[in-house]
Formats: sequence, structure tokens, C-alpha cells
Amino acid sequence: MSLCTDPLHIALPEWLVLLVASQGPCVSDRERMQFVVQLAAENVERGTGGPFGAAVFDETTGRLVAAGVNLVEPANNAALHAEVVALMFAQRAVGSFTLSSPPLATAHMLATSCAPCAMCLGAVHWSGVTRVLIGASREDATAIGFDEGPVFPESLRYLEARGIRFTDGVEREAARAVLQRFCDLKRPLYNG
Amino acid sequence: MSLCTDPLHIALPEWLVLLVASQGPCVSDRERMQFVVQLAAENVERGTGGPFGAAVFDETTGRLVAAGVNLVEPANNAALHAEVVALMFAQRAVGSFTLSSPPLATAHMLATSCAPCAMCLGAVHWSGVTRVLIGASREDATAIGFDEGPVFPESLRYLEARGIRFTDGVEREAARAVLQRFCDLKRPLYNG
Repeated sequence: MSLCTDPLHIALPEWLVLLVASQGPCVSDRERMQFVVQLAAENVERGTGGPFGAAVFDETTGRLVAAGVNLVEPANNAALHAEVVALMFAQRAVGSFTLSSPPLATAHMLATSCAPCAMCLGAVHWSGVTRVLIGASREDATAIGFDEGPVFPESLRYLEARGIRFTDGVEREAARAVLQRFCDLKRPLYNG
Repeated sequence: MSLCTDPLHIALPEWLVLLVASQGPCVSDRERMQFVVQLAAENVERGTGGPFGAAVFDETTGRLVAAGVNLVEPANNAALHAEVVALMFAQRAVGSFTLSSPPLATAHMLATSCAPCAMCLGAVHWSGVTRVLIGASREDATAIGFDEGPVFPESLRYLEARGIRFTDGVEREAARAVLQRFCDLKRPLYNG
């Protein structure tokens, strides 16, 4: 319990490192969602975190810029939701705290296997992505016991008014199946 | 711009490491707020990030568990607001993804020099803290150009209904003065 100020290291699971190394561009929304649902599913099966996956893509080409999975329990870090991990690694990849264009040459989007919680929606606000692709819904996460925090219809409208577009329900059944699998395995939930 | 999956390192500024090493307990709300306002002020004067400071304290004893400052620009990481940094380092310090009691022996609180943005409020939701102490207001941040994201009165009520107490306006003038100093120095703002 001593106060430690050494640098904090955030490491991706080894299987994720290997998986993204061989990943080609994902051209369609469906392909992008299938990729992040696969991440969520692998994270559950391998026991490396919660049932959530996310990735940042070059919006035009579909090139994968960064990927993330939920690392809350293994990392003892409640901020490491899949979306936050993907955005952090994407910002390092482009060498900027914003993924927006300009200043970057291309626009970026976030694909996430489940509707962003309050924290992740706030992270989207600051991230510079112009689009968010969503699989499972907030209700799907709530149904297995996750409390997604203070997100209201006006929260999305607030971001839409600032140029961020949301597309939800993409491959929802596949994304929801991963949540159900996590639940069936009786993996621990971790609300605040 | 290549996809890099090496671990991400989050390092605190050297001055912050030195400052917290000699920090004794902060017993009162006023002392806790003065400490985080000092962090915000140092972060501006030393040019190591945005005008925000935060810290996690043992709620009963006032022992400092972790401290953070805004590192968005130097770290190229839009998620590294002072609150998120303090919470991440606190969770590592206690060896748990939650700061709540139980499972921990003592309850924890977050002190922040400015009202949490949407992301940080969401991070509070997951963090396990039972109390949030706030200096400058959302309006104070907005006045110098920061867009704090989708936070509504019902956002706070949502967290209050889950047992998190908010105390605002503590040392507000001192906290606001740091925001104004950042503005007077014409430091860059970095909205998404």
C-alpha cells in the first residue's frame, strides 16, 4: 500500500499482440465489428480480462491503427476498458493526443464490441475520432450486470453536435453472445 | 504511424515524484484541495501539462495514496487527465482495480482541482472512491475554452445514488486562478 510513483506500464496480452500483427485492413463496418468482437471473445476464452474489444481504424482505408481489450482485472486498473486502451495505443501510434484530421492527414474511427460506458464516451469526446461503431447495446451489458454509468440520450446528442457519428447495432448478436459467454462462465463482474 | 503493440509507459513528471515523496497526510478538505491546486499550478509553471491536479487520499487518515496531473500533451494521450492518472496510480498502489471498502480496509476519496469532465466522472464511477472533492467548476473550465463533455446534473445524481458524495467549491478561487494563469500564458487548449 505504499505510495509508488514509478512509471505505470500497460501491456497488451501476448495473444493480442500476435493477432494484430497479421491483421490486414478491415474495409467494411461489418469487418471492423467482426474484428473487435473476435478480440472480446478471445479475451474471455483466454481469461485475460472482461468481455469487451475495441479498435481504432483509419476511417477511409480501414487500416488497423491500434487495438484494445478490457484489462481491468489483470492490470488492477479500472480505467483500462477496451476503448480507452485502443485510443491510448492509437494516439501513441500517430504521435498525437488527437486522432482528428486535421492535424492528421486522415480521419479515424473507433469500433467497440459494446456501447461505450460513461468513461469511454468521455474518452471518445477527447480522442479526435469522428465516428463510433457499436456492437452490443448498453442494455445488453446491463443485462449481465455491468453498470455502464451516467450515459443518457443527450450524452450522444452532445457528441453528435460536435461532429462525432454513431452507428450502433452492428453484429449485435455476435457481440451480445460474448457477454453471455462471460456470464455463463461466471466470471466476476467489477462495478465500482 | 506503424502499429505498435509494445507496452505503454505512463511516467509522472520528476517534480511530482519528488513533491509527493515528502508529502504528509492532509487531514482537512481544505488541505487536500490546497495540495491538488499546488499540483495544478506546478504543472503549468513547469510546462509539464494542463492546468489540472488530482490526488487520492485515504478518506479517514488523509494519507496520500497517489497523485496525478494532466499529461495529455507531453504524453500524447488524451485520457491522461489528472483524475485518471491519480486513480490509475492509486489502484496500482492498493493492488486492486477498486478503491472501495470493502474489499479494502479503508475508504478512499478523490480530490481534483477542477470539476471532472465526462470521462473523469465515468472513471470515478468505476474507481471505488466514495467521495469527490472539487475546486474550480465546470463553468470555470469552460470559461477558458475547455469543453468538458456530456456532464449533466443527472450525471452527478446518478453517481450520488450509488453512494458517491460530491463536495464542490473548495478553494475555488485558487483553483480558478491556475486555469486563468494557463490561459494568460497562452498555452494551447486541446479539445477533441
